Amino acid sequence: MATAELSAHDLIAQHRPTLDEALEAIRTRAYWSPHPEHPKAYGESGSLDAAAGKAAFDAVLNTRIDLGQPGTDGWVGGEVSPYGVELGVTYPHPDADVLLPAMKAGQAAWRDAGAEVRAVVCLEILKRISDRTHEFAHAVMHTSGQAFMMAFQAGGPHAQDRGLEAVAYAYAEQVRTPATAEWSKPQGKRDPLTMTKTFTPVPRGIALLIGCNTFPTWNGYPGLFASLATGNAVLVKPHPRAVLPLALTVRVAREVLAWAGFDPNLVALAAERPGEGIAKTLATRPEIRIIDYTGSTAFGDWLENNARQAQVHTEKAGVNTVLVESTANYKGMLANLAFSLSLYSGQMCTTPQNLLIPRDGIRTDEGPKTYDEVVSDLARSVDGLLGDDTRANALLGAIVNPDVKARLEAAAGLGEVALASREVTNPEFPGAVVRTPVIVKLDGTKPDDGAAYLSECFGPVSFAVAVDSAADALALLRRTVREKGAMTVGAYTTDSEVEREVEEVCLEESAQLSLNLTGGVYVNQTAAFSDFHGSGGNPAANAALTDGAFVANRFRVVEVRRDA
Amino acid sequence: MATAELSAHDLIAQHRPTLDEALEAIRTRAYWSPHPEHPKAYGESGSLDAAAGKAAFDAVLNTRIDLGQPGTDGWVGGEVSPYGVELGVTYPHPDADVLLPAMKAGQAAWRDAGAEVRAVVCLEILKRISDRTHEFAHAVMHTSGQAFMMAFQAGGPHAQDRGLEAVAYAYAEQVRTPATAEWSKPQGKRDPLTMTKTFTPVPRGIALLIGCNTFPTWNGYPGLFASLATGNAVLVKPHPRAVLPLALTVRVAREVLAWAGFDPNLVALAAERPGEGIAKTLATRPEIRIIDYTGSTAFGDWLENNARQAQVHTEKAGVNTVLVESTANYKGMLANLAFSLSLYSGQMCTTPQNLLIPRDGIRTDEGPKTYDEVVSDLARSVDGLLGDDTRANALLGAIVNPDVKARLEAAAGLGEVALASREVTNPEFPGAVVRTPVIVKLDGTKPDDGAAYLSECFGPVSFAVAVDSAADALALLRRTVREKGAMTVGAYTTDSEVEREVEEVCLEESAQLSLNLTGGVYVNQTAAFSDFHGSGGNPAANAALTDGAFVANRFRVVEVRRDA
Repeated sequence: MATAELSAHDLIAQHRPTLDEALEAIRTRAYWSPHPEHPKAYGESGSLDAAAGKAAFDAVLNTRIDLGQPGTDGWVGGEVSPYGVELGVTYPHPDADVLLPAMKAGQAAWRDAGAEVRAVVCLEILKRISDRTHEFAHAVMHTSGQAFMMAFQAGGPHAQDRGLEAVAYAYAEQVRTPATAEWSKPQGKRDPLTMTKTFTPVPRGIALLIGCNTFPTWNGYPGLFASLATGNAVLVKPHPRAVLPLALTVRVAREVLAWAGFDPNLVALAAERPGEGIAKTLATRPEIRIIDYTGSTAFGDWLENNARQAQVHTEKAGVNTVLVESTANYKGMLANLAFSLSLYSGQMCTTPQNLLIPRDGIRTDEGPKTYDEVVSDLARSVDGLLGDDTRANALLGAIVNPDVKARLEAAAGLGEVALASREVTNPEFPGAVVRTPVIVKLDGTKPDDGAAYLSECFGPVSFAVAVDSAADALALLRRTVREKGAMTVGAYTTDSEVEREVEEVCLEESAQLSLNLTGGVYVNQTAAFSDFHGSGGNPAANAALTDGAFVANRFRVVEVRRDA
Repeated sequence: MATAELSAHDLIAQHRPTLDEALEAIRTRAYWSPHPEHPKAYGESGSLDAAAGKAAFDAVLNTRIDLGQPGTDGWVGGEVSPYGVELGVTYPHPDADVLLPAMKAGQAAWRDAGAEVRAVVCLEILKRISDRTHEFAHAVMHTSGQAFMMAFQAGGPHAQDRGLEAVAYAYAEQVRTPATAEWSKPQGKRDPLTMTKTFTPVPRGIALLIGCNTFPTWNGYPGLFASLATGNAVLVKPHPRAVLPLALTVRVAREVLAWAGFDPNLVALAAERPGEGIAKTLATRPEIRIIDYTGSTAFGDWLENNARQAQVHTEKAGVNTVLVESTANYKGMLANLAFSLSLYSGQMCTTPQNLLIPRDGIRTDEGPKTYDEVVSDLARSVDGLLGDDTRANALLGAIVNPDVKARLEAAAGLGEVALASREVTNPEFPGAVVRTPVIVKLDGTKPDDGAAYLSECFGPVSFAVAVDSAADALALLRRTVREKGAMTVGAYTTDSEVEREVEEVCLEESAQLSLNLTGGVYVNQTAAFSDFHGSGGNPAANAALTDGAFVANRFRVVEVRRDA
């Protein structure tokens, strides 16, 4: 690191304590975060407060974000906020034949800096992003359609947590092997054989991050920081509807890299022309050796099958199930489920889709409830939660794109509607498409209904699936996870045998299970440093955020040995 | 573990110290091994001495190895030792539709046993194999064609080391996440959110080990033990010419599993009929979720492209280079290279193939040497090393199969022969095909010669490639590793700038480098716990033995969380 104002030592002194806390957190998996969740926590020590963050966001609208990248052959843009605002921002479009070689130029110096310096440079990037959390919150809100508070938290501190978690795993993985070793093998009466060995983590090449529409930062940061921290250059290809949050991220990363004396081209943006499909072109370039992707199963499968030169990490689609067998807290269960179905209009890869409920009803602390009662009580809970339009807007956000709206509208035709979706007006953003969730009754024994509940219906659509028994529910859960994958599974039961069986299904089919949630933690939310996001072991995703496997193959270790 | 004589506690008490030493060794990468290399070290505390081991091997010849596996639909065999002896052993041929489901039956109990119990059961398997090292040595010798001492060491203690190393990595990886965690998130003035979480390593499914002809145990044990220690059942598909060492391994594993109270079907053998190609059928079965393979590039590529339901680890072929630029120990260099070219008739994936030598000669401690002098001095060193037939037999072993013999014979036609191969008679085994290595001169600037030196020519064939300069040698090294892959790279230079440049090529192309070896360590040998075998970052292999990446994706972690 060559800048006068800065030494590697200073940066390590500044960030090493945070890195150490992160390393401890992934080991204990207790609660920890260095990134405040409350908007009012920002505005001190260099961070932007609410007004300054809003002003920074407003100032970027209708501008060109010129990142100073080599190989820019034009400017592209066209994002329209789900809240109805045209962002008017344009971004560099890459000439890959120029940009990719330029991204490799700085890689040897980045590699030679070593794992610790790379980690603290990544932490400095995260720190500067954290300081701009209010600005990022608006950028995430106006690309994903999340309501402001969710965009603030999930797009800000929670995304930064996931990035930091990836840095911690990447660092830990690289230092498992020492930098040097002295090796001395006894040879009986003769002198021992002795060797001096060095071990250097080396990057695979250039990593490609393919961002998603709904969680551009939260789903993007793990791959971005895992690749960068392991020595790779990273090309960021955002979803065309959600470029801004990742363009701002790339800008900060390039600033920090240059400031720390490294080549800013280690991180670059690849925005695309409408309908260009640049991800396919980039993903199969020989320079691209790592891919991180969040999005549709179809394109995730395409990447896995075609980008054979790369390590491909995919988070695709699953069908998430909640098994409702019995509960000791009926009201808590209903409130918890209602919130999970409503948050961000169900546009989370972790939102429950299928609620499996015995057709003969369930036992509760309020006495037995029939299938119909459970479904209508849940519908009433959702209605109650979203009855006030201000609260509804704050929870639901906006429908992210026309496809989700079309699926929501079609869902009402799939069965008996237990809870109809309604339009909510957003007084601040009249252009926003805001909808409450629909709940549709289906029959788990009817093959026609299976076509619906065994497909992912991304958006505010849930199916109350009547099943004959707990055993049938378990069998359907197993089939769903095995065939369709699941990011989350939930279960409500007071029966220890059913609990054991649902755990066994999840262990055998590799699905993450939340049991009897009735408080302020929801099946569709995970906390970095403690919860795994996905398992990487069922069809919904081939990787988990974040574990050793997520980072271990992003670099290789080169050994050089000499006679001592 | 249900047997009366044994508790998990006992097994842990017995093996935990060894596991801890292995964990320390992979962290420091200093020399360590619990498995004696000297044949005379065996015969005490239950291990077989030389005579008992030979007797055990003789007793198994011309028998049926009935492993008691379900789904056996016939008996197959037909191994003929490269030393000319028909082994006459037959093995179970599997009906996969019966065997694979049977292998899954015991998986839940094996999973529930936990990482530590699985590790110590694996160590017990390795201990019992170690006790039979003399028996295994004959089995490896008479399938691979290795000379006895090499079969003893590489097929015995060194293979057991690699197996134990894999167990250590697997254990370490699984316990990075705690079994349980208490999570408490502050909520300002409200009560904290609290959750109880459990984390369970779960297997992917059934692992398939596809063994090779030349190092059935050494190349087989890492995958076998990594998969078993992470909770998977393992189906062992040996090379049809090298079944016996892995059949004996499977027998010991099944004995130990049953003795420890687990289902012996967690490890099973799949021998094949002549020409059956059962590996293709098994590799694409949905139950097979992990594959470990050592062998040809063609089939390795086929597995990577077709066994898409599995994590595929391949060690394929590479073209290994030694760059000879200058040396401060000319005699030591020649002796070291001569040994590397001769050991096991060059039938190691790590044996150097291309020796890049400047056509203007090299600087040495004995004054300048022309290209021709270096090549003829090396030829003389090989001749001297192998001049005595007894020593030649002890070093060369036998040519493993007719393909290698054919390649050796064809190599003499590729260029000017600097050292001709000669036949060596093996008085003990007159049927053995024993040949000394050939060295052929090629020109690094002639495209026709490139067809030879840029293809792997597995066997006792080396090319002395004349290059115009050190820079040209570095460029050819880079091209060779990038396009063809390399398991090893060697270099001799006294020039610090050339040394730096060859290191840079190896760091950029992900190749393992041995520098200026002139003593008793050879470029084609690696030591478990300290050296990585391959890098997993160039076309020769997509995995290294053994690192975190080799084990991390063999299992997934399933989390179950509940309100606390």
